[in-house]
Amino acid sequence: MAQLRIPGPTPCPPEVLQAMSWPMINHRGPEYKKMLFDVTDKLKEVFQTKNDLYILTGSGTGALEAAVVNVLSPGDKVLSVSIGVFGDRWASIAKTFGADVINLNAEWGKAADPEAVKDAIKANPDIKAVMVTHNETSTGVTNDLEVISKVVKDAGKLLMVDAISSLSSIDLPVDKWGCDVVVTGSQKGWMVPPGLAMASISPEGWEAFEKATMPRFYWDFGKAESYLQKGQNPWTPAISVMFGLSVAMDMILKKGIQQIFNEQKRIGQMTRDGVKALGLSIFADEKYASNTVSAIAGSHGLDIGKLRQLMQSEHEIVLAGGQQSMDGKIFRIGHLGLVSEQEIEELLAALKETLPKAGFSP
Amino acid sequence: MAQLRIPGPTPCPPEVLQAMSWPMINHRGPEYKKMLFDVTDKLKEVFQTKNDLYILTGSGTGALEAAVVNVLSPGDKVLSVSIGVFGDRWASIAKTFGADVINLNAEWGKAADPEAVKDAIKANPDIKAVMVTHNETSTGVTNDLEVISKVVKDAGKLLMVDAISSLSSIDLPVDKWGCDVVVTGSQKGWMVPPGLAMASISPEGWEAFEKATMPRFYWDFGKAESYLQKGQNPWTPAISVMFGLSVAMDMILKKGIQQIFNEQKRIGQMTRDGVKALGLSIFADEKYASNTVSAIAGSHGLDIGKLRQLMQSEHEIVLAGGQQSMDGKIFRIGHLGLVSEQEIEELLAALKETLPKAGFSP
Repeated sequence: MAQLRIPGPTPCPPEVLQAMSWPMINHRGPEYKKMLFDVTDKLKEVFQTKNDLYILTGSGTGALEAAVVNVLSPGDKVLSVSIGVFGDRWASIAKTFGADVINLNAEWGKAADPEAVKDAIKANPDIKAVMVTHNETSTGVTNDLEVISKVVKDAGKLLMVDAISSLSSIDLPVDKWGCDVVVTGSQKGWMVPPGLAMASISPEGWEAFEKATMPRFYWDFGKAESYLQKGQNPWTPAISVMFGLSVAMDMILKKGIQQIFNEQKRIGQMTRDGVKALGLSIFADEKYASNTVSAIAGSHGLDIGKLRQLMQSEHEIVLAGGQQSMDGKIFRIGHLGLVSEQEIEELLAALKETLPKAGFSP
Repeated sequence: MAQLRIPGPTPCPPEVLQAMSWPMINHRGPEYKKMLFDVTDKLKEVFQTKNDLYILTGSGTGALEAAVVNVLSPGDKVLSVSIGVFGDRWASIAKTFGADVINLNAEWGKAADPEAVKDAIKANPDIKAVMVTHNETSTGVTNDLEVISKVVKDAGKLLMVDAISSLSSIDLPVDKWGCDVVVTGSQKGWMVPPGLAMASISPEGWEAFEKATMPRFYWDFGKAESYLQKGQNPWTPAISVMFGLSVAMDMILKKGIQQIFNEQKRIGQMTRDGVKALGLSIFADEKYASNTVSAIAGSHGLDIGKLRQLMQSEHEIVLAGGQQSMDGKIFRIGHLGLVSEQEIEELLAALKETLPKAGFSP
């Protein structure tokens, strides 16, 4: 069995995989209703929120689209705080649906500067919302969302957060930090196959929803709410992934989220220390290096394509490459969700053996 | 194990359920690429099309939204040929995204009248597209799509088809009938859990795509096409459901689609004959009664809620109720995908025993 060390999908525990093969049930019947209520409540614990929360059938990108169309109108000015591929993608979605997007882009590998966010809001007092990526999967950087959220909320703006690769792995107290719309996806730290996305919305988010005029149907939180009252989703949900999520939520809450955050921190540090000891360098500004995904810079003659290929063929370890302009310049190690120190040790040992074969000579 | 006799999700073969629990793979790696190409080709065989075809992560309703936003612009005049809940839903989606929708609604239980479609197009020569439900799940009616498609194509209009509960169960030669955009969902005749939707688009559909200005991102067929070139989906797909679909496609093609269509016909007729022999009547105009789902009218004192409840508690057979204004007036039997004559016999025997307990006295 190959070791999947990409930043999603993540490996799934055997109990979760087994649940994926449970026979179908009526998604408008009592059994599903019980599961939906139960999983929704447990998700709120991990989101650390009392806000409304919905489970959507789709990829994380679908949830990013949902966030946009539920609270914005064409012409609304929004500040996109982007530090990589996924921040850029979210800005594209907002633009596609007619938002007037102001781009505040950091150099890739760096975190967003809260002062720059403050200045951008000051320079554009009529902005309605700020879109921020909590953890940028493409560069392995975690923004200081606590400080950024304070800046945004002090200015009275709506705070939209892409927490796809952070929630359940990195501390994100949604209510405490005043995050109005927060989205994540099942195939990340949740240890569940892809197919479901989760989104929370605050009372202020609902106020924006009431006035928002971007066209919405499939992703409409209003429809999600009216069906949730009956213990249903508006459209036929990915039932098997719900089965998996129901099992994973029990595992997550049994371990406890603070414990998971601590383990993720330790695993992140261990990975970074390990690759540096091999003579490699972390692509991200280390002060903001992510504990869920590490991006490692190519250097000293390293052929990243060859490295990934050899790691897979000789060690059955699947690593991720760089996206877009980062293709061939970095490789990425996903270490979120189901991961052990032993697996990281094995990965580092395999890297040590493989690096020279891929041209690396520091 | 309960017998799920609702019109989706349908029961899944053990081989499909087992595939649902396969471990995760990289959705941007060679193994997934091979599966995606393979499943896409096999889907085209069942669609009987050479058109482009995409697998989307979402519910069937997502695919209905995809069909709309990929070929239409706000203000476009479209003819909605609706014969039930799902036809109405599709019209709502088009309206939500700004289409100028002309409604041609048939009385529920009846099929669409091709002459009325012809007249509506004649009265509105500037319509751009016609939206038709092939099989209306809410009323158990199958439209005569062969005749309707001729009317639409003779008039040179774009033909959009909701084939969610027909494709793979009822003959629908997409190319022969000139269907420009056709959508379906994994949890119907495909015998796979929900989470994936499939959509085909013709060259004329692509021409419309080029000019269409409704906002699209997640559902964008252009993005789906550019990623398919690389053997990928644009966004992380529901990988487990793809595993299930890959197994189901082999089973479907091994049996052969003509054989499946014939079996479905026989099962449909057997179900209708059986319920009529019990003194019940078919809600649909029988000339157009669906071979995938039967809607049965409440009559002679029958308490439909009680019937469904007793069928589940005493016989472990799950039936569907009526939707919206049909609630309490009809019940529905799903008999698409994985279903045997023996199961229908058992269901009829259970109905015979339960009907009097639910107040039915003909």
